Amino acid sequence: MHQPTISERLAELSIVLPEASKPAARYANAVEVSGGLVYVSGKGPSGSPKGKLGSTYSTAEGYAFARLTGLEILAVLQAELGSLDRVKRVVKLQGFVNATADFEEHHLVLNGCSELMLDVFGDQGIHARSVFGAVSLRDNLPVIVDSIFELN
Amino acid sequence: MHQPTISERLAELSIVLPEASKPAARYANAVEVSGGLVYVSGKGPSGSPKGKLGSTYSTAEGYAFARLTGLEILAVLQAELGSLDRVKRVVKLQGFVNATADFEEHHLVLNGCSELMLDVFGDQGIHARSVFGAVSLRDNLPVIVDSIFELN
Amino acid sequence: MHQPTISERLAELSIVLPEASKPAARYANAVEVSGGLVYVSGKGPSGSPKGKLGSTYSTAEGYAFARLTGLEILAVLQAELGSLDRVKRVVKLQGFVNATADFEEHHLVLNGCSELMLDVFGDQGIHARSVFGAVSLRDNLPVIVDSIFELN
Repeated sequence: MHQPTISERLAELSIVLPEASKPAARYANAVEVSGGLVYVSGKGPSGSPKGKLGSTYSTAEGYAFARLTGLEILAVLQAELGSLDRVKRVVKLQGFVNATADFEEHHLVLNGCSELMLDVFGDQGIHARSVFGAVSLRDNLPVIVDSIFELN
Repeated sequence: MHQPTISERLAELSIVLPEASKPAARYANAVEVSGGLVYVSGKGPSGSPKGKLGSTYSTAEGYAFARLTGLEILAVLQAELGSLDRVKRVVKLQGFVNATADFEEHHLVLNGCSELMLDVFGDQGIHARSVFGAVSLRDNLPVIVDSIFELN
Repeated sequence: MHQPTISERLAELSIVLPEASKPAARYANAVEVSGGLVYVSGKGPSGSPKGKLGSTYSTAEGYAFARLTGLEILAVLQAELGSLDRVKRVVKLQGFVNATADFEEHHLVLNGCSELMLDVFGDQGIHARSVFGAVSLRDNLPVIVDSIFELN
């Protein structure tokens, strides 16, 4: 049976990756180490939304921003690796949610990024993760996600 | 001389591990990569305490919550690995302390988790770590700890 | 052509590393794993400055604190490794900026640490990174940086 490539899965899901964003300062978008791990720099959603979960945005909006953030991460990876088919496993996501002091649904926000990874990579998309409330983020972004992938 | 197993050390310390908690959303409790590292998802203390360091809870209470969090991490590892004797080294702990803006004792809170690792693993329990104040955490948990272990 | 050692580059840059600080509690300054990665514990600037970005300190002051933090990281690495020439690559920096809720320049603060790494390591200093606002940090430090390096 034909195992679909990641490009084919993206097409099935009608996902068109954005252009990889430039780093916000003097650093790399991603660094690959000898053991086959790649560390992707913290990324936020496209469109430069500004505001906090718990005041500006609802959890559902945060979920959508986290999914958009996942697309940015995949765009960076594709630009760095040439092809997403080199990804063996999504290892770790860490979500920074720009939040108020009484917000309690950080995990539901990060699900937007987690579920994108499951949609795109299937079983290879199941990852470890963590999430917390940041008192503020650069440019008042609502969410940033840090990530680690393992390569074939 | 007989080198005690981790199970024997746990018994000596009268530690009974809880059942491994389920992930709070669609992700894995832990992911093992080829180089022998295992990334454990962010865990909080059992019993679902709610509140912040610097207002709801004292540093001593935070220390106790961080120790309970360490037990959750060990329970997850034992469930994933079959046996804690597969652990070669505690590599890294990162503590997220749900805190007020004027709290300054985050390191004393995380000591609860760090000292549990030293109690259980001895010299193999000495780890790198970091800790910061989160403006809020999921379900208003007082502390979450992210961790990385190296396996034999 | 003679490739300068890191000690020679430090001398050219007139950088004198401080003494490696002691861990703030019962943990290691750094942990090396089999694959050749070294995890350095979260470090802050020397001199124990206290305060937040967005109120106590300007972004330019934060940049200077982040550069000082980078020197602390290099001092720890040199003490652990014997020589900074063992560093193959700066892999990852994660900055925790003690910030107000409306601060938006976290990336400009972390640049202080990122640019030090580029000054010292050249192309080997280009790293992945992320940064967020912490509601509070231990001892009210303005910035803490977590880091990962790859060794030769």
